[in-house]
Amino acid sequence: MKYPKHIVSLIAALRRLPGVGNKTAERYAFQMLGWQSHHLAELAASIGSLKEMSSFCQECGALYEEKRCPYCREERRDRSLLCVVSTIKELFAIEQMGEHKGLYHVLGGLLSSMDGIICDSLAIDSLKTRIAKLGVEEVVIALDSTLEGDATTLYLRELLAEQRVTVTRLAFGLPMGRSFDYIGGGTLAMALSGRRAMR
Amino acid sequence: MKYPKHIVSLIAALRRLPGVGNKTAERYAFQMLGWQSHHLAELAASIGSLKEMSSFCQECGALYEEKRCPYCREERRDRSLLCVVSTIKELFAIEQMGEHKGLYHVLGGLLSSMDGIICDSLAIDSLKTRIAKLGVEEVVIALDSTLEGDATTLYLRELLAEQRVTVTRLAFGLPMGRSFDYIGGGTLAMALSGRRAMR
Repeated sequence: MKYPKHIVSLIAALRRLPGVGNKTAERYAFQMLGWQSHHLAELAASIGSLKEMSSFCQECGALYEEKRCPYCREERRDRSLLCVVSTIKELFAIEQMGEHKGLYHVLGGLLSSMDGIICDSLAIDSLKTRIAKLGVEEVVIALDSTLEGDATTLYLRELLAEQRVTVTRLAFGLPMGRSFDYIGGGTLAMALSGRRAMR
Repeated sequence: MKYPKHIVSLIAALRRLPGVGNKTAERYAFQMLGWQSHHLAELAASIGSLKEMSSFCQECGALYEEKRCPYCREERRDRSLLCVVSTIKELFAIEQMGEHKGLYHVLGGLLSSMDGIICDSLAIDSLKTRIAKLGVEEVVIALDSTLEGDATTLYLRELLAEQRVTVTRLAFGLPMGRSFDYIGGGTLAMALSGRRAMR
């Protein structure tokens, strides 16, 4: 006995979401069966129109909805400070904090030999061009602290060594509001070596 | 700083999924931004057509895709045995096991004063009608072991006491392949009182 075909297709499509396996996809599908029609229509429309609604800035690669990317066009932003992120998700996370006063550069991914992502797949040429054009003085690399993130960070450091810019990286250390119990030795070592004088 | 409007709507729509909060909805939305167009179109189409593709049997309330509900129409099934479930999800779970040889009855929910689900919201009148019409001898109540599930089970037992049917309930006990450590005292007590002689 199997589910009806249209339920099977829905479950298969939902399984493409990150971290969603068969059980979760089934739970979503059966829950949706009980949704009101207009809620289903809303979700379907949002997903169906996602690509056409989304434009990416030709300068920095950020997502925007109006005619111009709000970050590159905002005149008050510090053009000598450029923050390099992997995807727009991290851009939004940093922007929501409100601490970064410079511009952004979205790489569009991380170097990964497993997934076949090489330098040419990422916005690295345009990064070099922008650094020169904008007169950037500091490049803040804000990438994941994973195998791929670290490889990309090291690659960028080598690459930018030729250019006259300071290359910085986000600090490692204890996450705020976390107990020591859940923190790995690697993080602890980084937190210790990066300790700061209290004022 | 906020996400573009169309991303905000997508996140809001995704949050209606069970167990999906803001963080997960954001993760889904940003992941979808990187999907290929035809994958987005497939998911949107599956969700958008869900209601119109889904028909529910007028007899038992099961979901079916052909003209007839496969369970009610299958002649080999034992018409004297009726399994009462809350939603079609449980029906599929029981059917996939292949052990139930009788028919089903989908209530469409569980009694819940919190959610305003009263007897009239559930397919209870049709349950009584079907028991008489089919000549049911045993009603197996297969509902969740939750506050709402238990209330509904007790309500059905009272209601069916007037009718000449045996009312049974799924057994409680240890889940298969689980360590004792993770089993609550209530389950253990039920497992002990329901112990069986080994043959």
